[in-house]
Amino acid sequence: MEFQNCFPIWDKLNTSQQSRILDSLVSHHVKKGTIIHSGSMDCTGLLLLKSGQLRVYILSDEGREITLYRLFELDMCLFSASCMLRSIQFDVTIAAEKDTEFWVVPAEVYKRILEESAPAANYTNELMASRFSDVMWLMEQIMWKSLDKRVAAFLLEEAAIEGSDRLKITHETIANHLGSHREVITRLLRYFQNEGMVRLSRGVIEITDADRLEELGNPQ
Amino acid sequence: MEFQNCFPIWDKLNTSQQSRILDSLVSHHVKKGTIIHSGSMDCTGLLLLKSGQLRVYILSDEGREITLYRLFELDMCLFSASCMLRSIQFDVTIAAEKDTEFWVVPAEVYKRILEESAPAANYTNELMASRFSDVMWLMEQIMWKSLDKRVAAFLLEEAAIEGSDRLKITHETIANHLGSHREVITRLLRYFQNEGMVRLSRGVIEITDADRLEELGNPQ
Repeated sequence: MEFQNCFPIWDKLNTSQQSRILDSLVSHHVKKGTIIHSGSMDCTGLLLLKSGQLRVYILSDEGREITLYRLFELDMCLFSASCMLRSIQFDVTIAAEKDTEFWVVPAEVYKRILEESAPAANYTNELMASRFSDVMWLMEQIMWKSLDKRVAAFLLEEAAIEGSDRLKITHETIANHLGSHREVITRLLRYFQNEGMVRLSRGVIEITDADRLEELGNPQ
Repeated sequence: MEFQNCFPIWDKLNTSQQSRILDSLVSHHVKKGTIIHSGSMDCTGLLLLKSGQLRVYILSDEGREITLYRLFELDMCLFSASCMLRSIQFDVTIAAEKDTEFWVVPAEVYKRILEESAPAANYTNELMASRFSDVMWLMEQIMWKSLDKRVAAFLLEEAAIEGSDRLKITHETIANHLGSHREVITRLLRYFQNEGMVRLSRGVIEITDADRLEELGNPQ
């Protein structure tokens, strides 16, 4: 797996730009649970995922969390280089949800390429528009969708990511993804269990009726 | 007032780009209340405000609204040209809150300039990052801040925009800005009135204790 084959606009860069990227490129391997980026203090650079899974979220002063979006293989992460754009005035935290391998193009290298290259700048635009769309989707969920529907949709998304109906996840973790409280999530999951949609045991949520969960979470 | 003096990167465009903009530029004057852009069906182009005030908001299927941000004199509006970026996958509505004058650079003209010009593409990036920051600020307000604090902050913002403590605004309108319901806003405003922070009369909210409202809405 080579960076050249994974970076979508590689062929639109000139040889000087290509070699500056290759000369400065760093490869990382982090364990599940590692915080890769935290608030505005960091400006690591542009990340490109080789494998694994990252979670991008915001934190309140009181330590509450809500997941903005997740990044998977071949996804690019722009906000780990938010210093490149002075108009980005918010802080996100980025953590590895699985053991993760990624490349980093240092922020100052990518910033100079952005200044020179319309294709790089337009690609970055599309990247930001795509994350903006994720956040707008989330905003609509939060504003117009009740929490039971969001929990149902979250459980189905997790099952799809993990390829299993047996999810090893705590109620606290779900609360942190959805910007809620553990007690509220526990109450909802017990309701789901009473309705026969899930089975709860220590540290595990098993989906027992995916169809009804689907109907609740993603109605047509 | 000339477009050339108001468009921040004018001097970074070449003469061909400058003349393509001037040849296609359209000037508009709309009355308060006009819907300028609605969902993905429109792709008017890049807007630059000469005067007035625009409101950018999202709508739920049930007709509920929430204001994302407002645009004032010399602000640029990118999402009226969202077709330029295929990764923008959300719909906003843009309405004039006052009589408003603006220029439009047609979407297809600006899109071609973006493809050619790194400065234009980077400027567009900053513009999007800035709106993204507005939406993230809103997300944090919705997630971590109670509605009474958001109403207090909204009343103070309105008073600053209008330059008056006497606001001609309905409870319904406030609900639509904040993504809430009229009944809930009315209850909160009556509480504010009982506490001596505002005085309510038909169609008017008068701020009578801005300091306490400030303390509630924007605590240090």
